[in-house]
Amino acid sequence: MKTHLTILAFLLLLAGSPCVAQTSQSAIKEDFKSSSLNQPGKKYPMVNSQGYARFRIEAPDAQSVVVSLGLGGTKGGTPLTKAKDGSWMGTTAGPMDEGFHYYHVTIDGGVFNDPGACNFYGSTRWESGIEIPAHDQDFYALKDVPHGNVQQILFPSKSTNSVRRAFVYTPPTYDKDVNQRYPVLYLQHGWGENETAWFNQGHANLIMDNLIAEGKIKPFIIVTTYGMTNEIRFGGLRNFDIKPFQTVLTEELIPYVDKHFRTKADQAHRAMAGLSMGGMETHMITLNKPEVFSYYALLSGGLYKPEEIKDKSKVKLIFISCGSKERPDAVKNAVTALKEAGFNAVSYVSEGTAHEFLTWRRSLHELAPLLFK
Amino acid sequence: MKTHLTILAFLLLLAGSPCVAQTSQSAIKEDFKSSSLNQPGKKYPMVNSQGYARFRIEAPDAQSVVVSLGLGGTKGGTPLTKAKDGSWMGTTAGPMDEGFHYYHVTIDGGVFNDPGACNFYGSTRWESGIEIPAHDQDFYALKDVPHGNVQQILFPSKSTNSVRRAFVYTPPTYDKDVNQRYPVLYLQHGWGENETAWFNQGHANLIMDNLIAEGKIKPFIIVTTYGMTNEIRFGGLRNFDIKPFQTVLTEELIPYVDKHFRTKADQAHRAMAGLSMGGMETHMITLNKPEVFSYYALLSGGLYKPEEIKDKSKVKLIFISCGSKERPDAVKNAVTALKEAGFNAVSYVSEGTAHEFLTWRRSLHELAPLLFK
Repeated sequence: MKTHLTILAFLLLLAGSPCVAQTSQSAIKEDFKSSSLNQPGKKYPMVNSQGYARFRIEAPDAQSVVVSLGLGGTKGGTPLTKAKDGSWMGTTAGPMDEGFHYYHVTIDGGVFNDPGACNFYGSTRWESGIEIPAHDQDFYALKDVPHGNVQQILFPSKSTNSVRRAFVYTPPTYDKDVNQRYPVLYLQHGWGENETAWFNQGHANLIMDNLIAEGKIKPFIIVTTYGMTNEIRFGGLRNFDIKPFQTVLTEELIPYVDKHFRTKADQAHRAMAGLSMGGMETHMITLNKPEVFSYYALLSGGLYKPEEIKDKSKVKLIFISCGSKERPDAVKNAVTALKEAGFNAVSYVSEGTAHEFLTWRRSLHELAPLLFK
Repeated sequence: MKTHLTILAFLLLLAGSPCVAQTSQSAIKEDFKSSSLNQPGKKYPMVNSQGYARFRIEAPDAQSVVVSLGLGGTKGGTPLTKAKDGSWMGTTAGPMDEGFHYYHVTIDGGVFNDPGACNFYGSTRWESGIEIPAHDQDFYALKDVPHGNVQQILFPSKSTNSVRRAFVYTPPTYDKDVNQRYPVLYLQHGWGENETAWFNQGHANLIMDNLIAEGKIKPFIIVTTYGMTNEIRFGGLRNFDIKPFQTVLTEELIPYVDKHFRTKADQAHRAMAGLSMGGMETHMITLNKPEVFSYYALLSGGLYKPEEIKDKSKVKLIFISCGSKERPDAVKNAVTALKEAGFNAVSYVSEGTAHEFLTWRRSLHELAPLLFK
């Protein structure tokens, strides 16, 4: 349990970083455009070229409307004020970090979603999402290239006495040559999220499609499933027990995937990665089950120490990443120590981002070319 | 265009039916349980064994909270009243019809979703959903049977200059015999919905899985895509032009599906069905393109007249259905006329339901065994 608690502490520190860039508020450019994550036909929320977000909520008889997004140091987010037309409007006090942010709206003391935005599962609920266009967004853009499919599978789980859901990304070539087999990356979400996060928030399928179209990676399969199988679901991480999820993953899901998809069904062709809490799970499961995975990746999700790994020959790659606003030095130091101990270890730091999805999109983009070589 | 307008008028009449059963309000049984469509861990909304729905919204400083669901004849839905704990609570004035209902909450004049419920795309927005357990819900229940997959595909569309999304249900046997080919049902959503509706609200995949497990149908593929490709998106149906969607469906999506999935790629093994506006689209496209589909189905979505169909020999089945609270006589009379004209025509009326998804779940359940025989 000691290892677990160390990782937990690290995760909590990472999560505390602010998600808003600290710059001057003086000159706000009036070039606002609708967020790319808005519901069809909805104008607000909007984002300008500097990364300011502007909100508009219709609630003519409300007393108070506050958006939870705001400058990191400012308690209370962005309060909206009543406009002439009876709607509530407001702009963040500063530019937001590039990338995806969860938010919600507090109306007269109750927490609701912004009717203008699409919802994304985070914080154990469907939350509003907004996207601040990143300067490097091209790598996860929807392009006119061959696209892989993302399919929902429903697999039986005796250990939880339920039918469970997972998503499987198959690369664009999957239907072409029925004799071709593919390696598999098992990719986990963070606390409060679920198996939809890596595709909805993370654009993992588009990242893969683009990398494959550019010839930068050899195609592989990605599988995501729900990792909050026990009491952590609506509580804290303190009493976390990896066993229930480890059983679902290694004894139920992996055999199901290997049976129903054309996988290369061995340790040499299996990777596990996770973000935040998913990194914690990856860390625990890869150490507990060295015979299952050979590539390990923690994205803002803790570190490996060389002495934790019993059989160095079983590990082909250790990838550790975080945002520059998290604790990049800890990541770099851990990788230096792993390298000195003879591991093939790689660190990656996402510039200008915190404990949020742009960090993880970029991390996957860096990780994918290193897998299954 | 005359045909189109006739169908439109019929659709509008269908949609006007109340969605709430008209019975006494006297003795409400206190056996409320959480709706099956609630967000994880959320207690409210709740439903009792009689079909009453009870709501609880936290908004301590609000002046007015009203749920849009209510007795069909009652304007203003179900107003909630402030409870002792500061939350707003209320129960529908009568039992609701069995099955799925969209709803939203008006808080101080603004329209929001219930934070307790999952959201479903309808009315051109993500709306809250609630499920009143149906006495026959077993046919779409998630069971421990072999499950097919539902996969998101992204296909290129030159006519709309975009990459478009569709969902493809492949039956449980799809990955087993790589030489097996399957017929395809193209299944359309209603106005304001999208390609997610038949799976999220309709449970089309579970209906298929269960029918296949019971040996009641031969497996086939189902494809859904977005059918509101032109100005009807946020306007009315009056200026509807079928061309843009017909082009996407017949010249882009079908060739893509036939290329990437193991389909029986001919008219004899292709069906089209749609609910409400999707029925209108089915009606138009099957008449315009008799060489593409041989099975036609309209679910609360208009009628065929015998004289509309030029070549009887090309049509293997015409299926027309609606809820008993819609216009069942019109459906039955149309099918009688089709039979008299020598068509293989079948009518189905869903007992006790209106223009809502239980009608369409049941319709699919009745239709599937009649297809591709």
